[in-house]
Amino acid sequence: MRKGRGSLFIVSAPSGAGKTTLCQKLAGLLPGIGQSISFTTRPPRKGEVNDRDYTFISEDEFRKLITQGEFLEWAKVHGNLYGTSRRRLEQLRNEGNDAILDIDIEGARQVRAADGNGVFIFILPPSLSVLKARLDGRRSDAPEEIALRMKRAKEEIKEYKHYDYVIVNDVFDDALSELKAIVIAERLRVDRVNPEWVRDIMQ
Amino acid sequence: MRKGRGSLFIVSAPSGAGKTTLCQKLAGLLPGIGQSISFTTRPPRKGEVNDRDYTFISEDEFRKLITQGEFLEWAKVHGNLYGTSRRRLEQLRNEGNDAILDIDIEGARQVRAADGNGVFIFILPPSLSVLKARLDGRRSDAPEEIALRMKRAKEEIKEYKHYDYVIVNDVFDDALSELKAIVIAERLRVDRVNPEWVRDIMQ
Repeated sequence: MRKGRGSLFIVSAPSGAGKTTLCQKLAGLLPGIGQSISFTTRPPRKGEVNDRDYTFISEDEFRKLITQGEFLEWAKVHGNLYGTSRRRLEQLRNEGNDAILDIDIEGARQVRAADGNGVFIFILPPSLSVLKARLDGRRSDAPEEIALRMKRAKEEIKEYKHYDYVIVNDVFDDALSELKAIVIAERLRVDRVNPEWVRDIMQ
Repeated sequence: MRKGRGSLFIVSAPSGAGKTTLCQKLAGLLPGIGQSISFTTRPPRKGEVNDRDYTFISEDEFRKLITQGEFLEWAKVHGNLYGTSRRRLEQLRNEGNDAILDIDIEGARQVRAADGNGVFIFILPPSLSVLKARLDGRRSDAPEEIALRMKRAKEEIKEYKHYDYVIVNDVFDDALSELKAIVIAERLRVDRVNPEWVRDIMQ
């Protein structure tokens, strides 16, 4: 029924809204969808593994990859560079998998310009105070860093209008179910039905 | 988050593909979605209850309702008239519920013309032979009636292209999950987000 090539799901959110965990859990929950590992110059956080969470590289290496056209999108977020490998993404999709991209709002803008067929999903926190509590609880960022992220979040939330879907991450499992429903529904869209497959039904 | 007025989901399928059972089960499974009871001149099948499965009326009464503009859509299917009450549907949606319409392909065409914002879902049988086996198993129709439905099904299946989503009803529970996913996903569409609600988050 499905066409050979996978779809592209782009998930953005203000920092701390939970998009990274949502995307990781989804990939484990639903067959046929995967994440392409991003490159970053940010130092690994506790528990993060190279080539699993990100491919951690130096700024020099990152700049070199930019000039080589390696990135579908890249952005500087809170002083660190993040980029999505065009090559890794194509490989995933050409194998028939959907791809889910966990990227910031500026990155999503670049993907929208490059691939109009993506499905854009925005994750909202239930409130700014909950967002702040989550960032505080993470204990990985300094207070001035958190203040910066909160200021940025207020700006970023306004961008939800440019996305196709909006999920509120209040109860995590509910948000995960909703993300899963979006992927399942998008797979059922008529433009993903192979006409030859329908002809087979009618034999 | 959701806007006040409910959405309209239209489900069509060749006779015997299982759309009626799917729609009934969905309404019991998911809060906030209901069916408006259709009118029909068809005699009740065994187990069908008036004003639950359909409102069963005479052809004279039906014709009278047509002239009164009562129907959002109506159609003659296999010699019987079926119609969707505009009034019942509006009541359901104005109460904030989504409405799911279990109607034939001609009816769906009329709804598309009247309400461009509906979500159109087509249910396919896994094959024509399975469809035939299901119609045979129903034991409510004469062989010549079944032959007529099969002929019609072959024509109807071609219409899937005019729908938004396509579900294959092979394993019933899977098809039901997929129908549910479509409704959940559609509720998360950005155009159903109330901007005032986002402003509240940002307080």
